[in-house]
Amino acid sequence: MTDLRIVIAGAGGRMGRTLIRAIAETEGLKLVGALEYAGSAHLGEDAGLMAGTGPNGITVESDVAPALNGADVVIDFSTPAATVRLAGRLAEAGIAHVIGTTGFSNEDNAAIADAALRTVIVKSGNMSLGVNLLAALTRRVAATLGDDFDIEIVEMHHNRKVDAPSGTALLLGDAAAAGRNRKLDECSDRGRDGLTGPRVKGNIGFASLRGGSVVGEHMVIFAGASERIELVHKAEDRMIFANGALTAARWTKCGETRREPGLYSMADVLGLADF
Amino acid sequence: MTDLRIVIAGAGGRMGRTLIRAIAETEGLKLVGALEYAGSAHLGEDAGLMAGTGPNGITVESDVAPALNGADVVIDFSTPAATVRLAGRLAEAGIAHVIGTTGFSNEDNAAIADAALRTVIVKSGNMSLGVNLLAALTRRVAATLGDDFDIEIVEMHHNRKVDAPSGTALLLGDAAAAGRNRKLDECSDRGRDGLTGPRVKGNIGFASLRGGSVVGEHMVIFAGASERIELVHKAEDRMIFANGALTAARWTKCGETRREPGLYSMADVLGLADF
Amino acid sequence: MTDLRIVIAGAGGRMGRTLIRAIAETEGLKLVGALEYAGSAHLGEDAGLMAGTGPNGITVESDVAPALNGADVVIDFSTPAATVRLAGRLAEAGIAHVIGTTGFSNEDNAAIADAALRTVIVKSGNMSLGVNLLAALTRRVAATLGDDFDIEIVEMHHNRKVDAPSGTALLLGDAAAAGRNRKLDECSDRGRDGLTGPRVKGNIGFASLRGGSVVGEHMVIFAGASERIELVHKAEDRMIFANGALTAARWTKCGETRREPGLYSMADVLGLADF
Amino acid sequence: MTDLRIVIAGAGGRMGRTLIRAIAETEGLKLVGALEYAGSAHLGEDAGLMAGTGPNGITVESDVAPALNGADVVIDFSTPAATVRLAGRLAEAGIAHVIGTTGFSNEDNAAIADAALRTVIVKSGNMSLGVNLLAALTRRVAATLGDDFDIEIVEMHHNRKVDAPSGTALLLGDAAAAGRNRKLDECSDRGRDGLTGPRVKGNIGFASLRGGSVVGEHMVIFAGASERIELVHKAEDRMIFANGALTAARWTKCGETRREPGLYSMADVLGLADF
Repeated sequence: MTDLRIVIAGAGGRMGRTLIRAIAETEGLKLVGALEYAGSAHLGEDAGLMAGTGPNGITVESDVAPALNGADVVIDFSTPAATVRLAGRLAEAGIAHVIGTTGFSNEDNAAIADAALRTVIVKSGNMSLGVNLLAALTRRVAATLGDDFDIEIVEMHHNRKVDAPSGTALLLGDAAAAGRNRKLDECSDRGRDGLTGPRVKGNIGFASLRGGSVVGEHMVIFAGASERIELVHKAEDRMIFANGALTAARWTKCGETRREPGLYSMADVLGLADF
Repeated sequence: MTDLRIVIAGAGGRMGRTLIRAIAETEGLKLVGALEYAGSAHLGEDAGLMAGTGPNGITVESDVAPALNGADVVIDFSTPAATVRLAGRLAEAGIAHVIGTTGFSNEDNAAIADAALRTVIVKSGNMSLGVNLLAALTRRVAATLGDDFDIEIVEMHHNRKVDAPSGTALLLGDAAAAGRNRKLDECSDRGRDGLTGPRVKGNIGFASLRGGSVVGEHMVIFAGASERIELVHKAEDRMIFANGALTAARWTKCGETRREPGLYSMADVLGLADF
Repeated sequence: MTDLRIVIAGAGGRMGRTLIRAIAETEGLKLVGALEYAGSAHLGEDAGLMAGTGPNGITVESDVAPALNGADVVIDFSTPAATVRLAGRLAEAGIAHVIGTTGFSNEDNAAIADAALRTVIVKSGNMSLGVNLLAALTRRVAATLGDDFDIEIVEMHHNRKVDAPSGTALLLGDAAAAGRNRKLDECSDRGRDGLTGPRVKGNIGFASLRGGSVVGEHMVIFAGASERIELVHKAEDRMIFANGALTAARWTKCGETRREPGLYSMADVLGLADF
Repeated sequence: MTDLRIVIAGAGGRMGRTLIRAIAETEGLKLVGALEYAGSAHLGEDAGLMAGTGPNGITVESDVAPALNGADVVIDFSTPAATVRLAGRLAEAGIAHVIGTTGFSNEDNAAIADAALRTVIVKSGNMSLGVNLLAALTRRVAATLGDDFDIEIVEMHHNRKVDAPSGTALLLGDAAAAGRNRKLDECSDRGRDGLTGPRVKGNIGFASLRGGSVVGEHMVIFAGASERIELVHKAEDRMIFANGALTAARWTKCGETRREPGLYSMADVLGLADF
């Protein structure tokens, strides 16, 4: 089998550099381009040196066209505007697009859905195998147990994180609500403090812990009469997000052929869609 | 709907008495008989007084025939020999049988399977909703993640428990092995101590904690490269096992009609068979 | 040794009845009186029947004087007003007072402190051995680790609890703040939600989980650079609070003699004051 | 204040290289020598290049004398034989010695104790602040709670670890036994499996989990009647052991003067000796 030819967009960011290192260490993958925004201080650098792997001959550039030449797939952890622009270009060129960027508007999402009519796009707010599996389990357990079990979602992250709950906690909340055929924003219980009154049946509670250097831990609790089920994910290293993105990149081909155009999730990549 | 008419076998045991209390507190259920072995000190007692609910007019007896008169279902936490004998009687009479007894030989199991050709039997080593759900999740996650994730099963029980690992931990181990299309006894790693060498890929590890008054906690850990998934069940009170048995008893009827003969598990009762 | 002669105030409440049962099961303790407020529906009942232990010949009454006759100690889970009145009476009579009532005003506390000049009083918002030990550990660890470790306090209780964080979580927060020579209300971080910005160094975070029938779990997390220490208490049964109150009652005597007048905490009773 | 001048023994090992990186990143510390055994493939290399920090002008060598020239302290993660030889040299030269090497014989320990008559030596099987604090807490809690609480020690490490329980788990077991004035080998309960009978009061149980890439987690459970206390340490990164060794190295001086000769533990360094 020939190597999968990968371009990294947002190559100078933390995830971009982690991806460049992961590609260098993985058989069957080949870095063929490294993109940064016009004006980035990284332009012109050797991508390998930038990522700390030793020089690899790929120069960081802002010009998309040459970088895409011969590429199979672009892995993209950049910004919403850059991702939307790139999605149009990749749809035209028939190159696969793995999107880890977050923070899209409804318009952005519509543009990406449109691009997905013409090429294969995998898009997810969290590329880790474990977190996506946890979401699938959460939906399934919520559907099985019903409202007699109270659902609480707890997450812990490092002390520099600026928002709460984490995006992944909300993704788990969506999965729990979906399992009960509800919308999360109708039953979300956040920031519990003071005289709250008794818990409202059917609500989904959130709690956010911050401290130290914790990479990311999420727990979904189903608390019933005299018994509890807890589903937990613990990330030890950000490398799991890079590995998930590379799994998605490989999945955009099925053997030697490109997959059908469409907008896919990590649940599709991991075979969890009908979990 | 008419009340479900229940006989308890092993009425004087801890589970038997818990069941008598639970039936007294639950609408739609009616105790119509209480069986103990010939020679039991409880024979002739009022079953309600014995269970601590106040007298209910049902006398504990060893004679099966009168107790079964008009019964819909027998819930049985007695001994293997008593259960096998009773299964034959109930099959003849077409009365449903919920079996929580444990410790059966292969012959016992064959006799029960034979009785299940003629009446509905639900049989399980652990009747709790949560534990059966945990087992279903364990099988599914083991199948999804494969051998790259190491499986460890940890349980904690009170300091009077005499065997390790718990029967429920082994049930979870069976589920994990089944998810990987293996037999547990080919890959079980118990009593880890001393110079063990590195962990053998594909093995399923067990650890047993004992202390205090813990009712029962089980955790299945899937530990991969830089991420972990943990599935946990915590029992706060033995009442959950009684409630599970009552759920099974109700399930032996579908509306007003008895279910088809067959040997069923709690996974069938709880709709987890194809989880 | 002669039996310790105990009166229960607030005898009809959940803690009062639990205490009556616990006294009946414990060698060396004797119930000699049971008090309820004037107008209580329990007045005139047999205290044992009320508590579910079988009749014990002690009648629930609202008249304090006869109940106190010959008593060594009153265990009091009533209301602030009743407790303050009772404290004056007991100080006069030289009878020990164990106070588990909560919700006192500053004036109430002053009145109790005044009574403690004349008799021994033990007063605490949580009588459990484990929780008081956890508080002592929390203070000590907070003092040892300093501000480089972020402190987070998480608690879980059943779904009927109406306030958050729990009183015990706040007690643990006070202990953590005291360990750092700070006041909790200067550094408390509650109800974290939305765009919070990075964690403020030195703050103590709180999170409250609600669900099912959880009796009470508390965890204090100290999260530093690449390592965490967690101190956890799990209550399985409310009986531990009754047991703590009985330990306090016994401690009011030292052998056969009454302890010196004074206002004591459970930390004194448990020998944790200089932990 | 002048920089602390540090030599690393065992410079080419995993801890040696981690220490060289940590020193390069820490103000007030200066690497002045790097030792490896005669015959090591690293001899003659630049220590900084070897550790991945860029060249620092310090050559890895096996000749001790020149490396020690002007050094304040040697941090030593080498082998028992090398450490014992080095201890003699450092005692002569009056240079402090921080020993993280493990696996000493009784004779080795005697030789090190002898060297400590002439210079300051800090020696510990685990240099992490958190683990040493956990040990101090464990001793204290074991002393406070007594035999009514069952002690269980659980640890989890990556799947390449070859022995069980971990050295740190045994260190915690020693602390627990010491808190009860017992020897661990009289009350240790390891490898629990099969028909064990009820738990023996006063025993300390151990359980070892292995899986994935877990750096190291330890939990000490005190399980009593209806309540549990759990003391937990979680290591996210081996850097905490390097940081502990550097803290010990700094502690060998008090201001600008060397501390009195003696054999110290991390408990001394961290001020936990009388915890």
